[in-house]
Amino acid sequence: MNYRLDIQYDGTRYEGWQRQKTTGNTIQGKIEEVLSRMLETPVQIDGAGRTDAGVHAKGQVANVHMDTEKSCEEICEYLNRYLPEDIGIKEVSQVQERFHSRLLARKKIYQYRIAAGYHKNVFERKYQCPLHETFDVDAMKEAARLLTGTHDFKSFCSNKRMKKSTERTIYSIDVESLPGELRITYTGDGFLYNMVRILTGTLVEVGRGVRKPEEMTDILLACHREAAGFTAPAQGLTLLKVEY
Amino acid sequence: MNYRLDIQYDGTRYEGWQRQKTTGNTIQGKIEEVLSRMLETPVQIDGAGRTDAGVHAKGQVANVHMDTEKSCEEICEYLNRYLPEDIGIKEVSQVQERFHSRLLARKKIYQYRIAAGYHKNVFERKYQCPLHETFDVDAMKEAARLLTGTHDFKSFCSNKRMKKSTERTIYSIDVESLPGELRITYTGDGFLYNMVRILTGTLVEVGRGVRKPEEMTDILLACHREAAGFTAPAQGLTLLKVEY
Repeated sequence: MNYRLDIQYDGTRYEGWQRQKTTGNTIQGKIEEVLSRMLETPVQIDGAGRTDAGVHAKGQVANVHMDTEKSCEEICEYLNRYLPEDIGIKEVSQVQERFHSRLLARKKIYQYRIAAGYHKNVFERKYQCPLHETFDVDAMKEAARLLTGTHDFKSFCSNKRMKKSTERTIYSIDVESLPGELRITYTGDGFLYNMVRILTGTLVEVGRGVRKPEEMTDILLACHREAAGFTAPAQGLTLLKVEY
Repeated sequence: MNYRLDIQYDGTRYEGWQRQKTTGNTIQGKIEEVLSRMLETPVQIDGAGRTDAGVHAKGQVANVHMDTEKSCEEICEYLNRYLPEDIGIKEVSQVQERFHSRLLARKKIYQYRIAAGYHKNVFERKYQCPLHETFDVDAMKEAARLLTGTHDFKSFCSNKRMKKSTERTIYSIDVESLPGELRITYTGDGFLYNMVRILTGTLVEVGRGVRKPEEMTDILLACHREAAGFTAPAQGLTLLKVEY
């Protein structure tokens, strides 16, 4: 049987989603550990987005092939009981045999939140990047418009050894100015390593007036990481949703 | 000049609101420390609600008499810069000389949040009490109705040496069942030491079927702490608002 897991986590304490050989402290590792204990046999799961260390998720999706007599609700309850308090399973559901959380994902939505101005939001502090500046939001919106579409995003990728295609489609980048918070929401067919954080760092530099919106076109054409802005810190980033 | 501070905090790390001789780790202490540094002279502030260790606030109010040439916005910015990340000042405003945050408070609103069922809300985990049970909400609502009004709440007070009147008026107790969360909101003219937490513990026992709603009347009449239910943990409690 193939099961889909809808997962949320506060990524602060973890080395990211993906299981690693050297550290057990990953989200994937924690979930596999509990599932393996439940089934008394080693289990591997596949996640839709390989979030970096410190990145959060409200809508991560994974799937796992396993045989169990437990109901979906019982699996969900078991996982929530034994997982640490900062990893939660929202739902477990049975899916078709061919469902694959990563390969079949059509759209991913990431959100980057910045604490702006001098306001402090105590209850959201771990999910916002505390820049406490004021930004030229109109310029950021203009830059966001130029980055939207199908482009080679090599300039926005940290992985220098990336051999595969670096072309991606961004359907939308919404820049919203809320009281005390600047929120940037990215919807795309997929994102390269660190891509959302580098896009954010570049947009922040536009918001600061250090770069002009028009530069975005040249940055895309450069196809070189150094052409783009800084990599925004992980803590402001949340994987909101994966669509199939 | 008299200034009003609107304050929020995540109480997890603190020994409560009120300054103590033996520990500097209180919200009041932290704010006084930063204000005293700003003014280069010792400053004392008055808070509306003396929240216990571990209790949070979204709308605590304090006032402070001080002389400064800084604007309200500058004071707010200074405080937010030097206070720890889990204490935030929402607003600083000049108020009439006679304003006193505690003595003139007409209404206080506290909210108690319980993680119910087997759902887990990772992002709210520090502000909910994780009971993960299902409750008889109708029975809780009936019990809440019987507790509303003007009563002697001595049975709901932890302070045995309380010499002053233990009569208080509760205007409303709203019991709401949300997905994965049970939320109880208390509005009253004031609350005794631990009163909201003991009211919550007693309502939880009604929700579990251990007590009947009708018992509330007898508990009030008993005027004895042992007649009421357990003291619910601090982490689920938030001071939402103080009205003048």
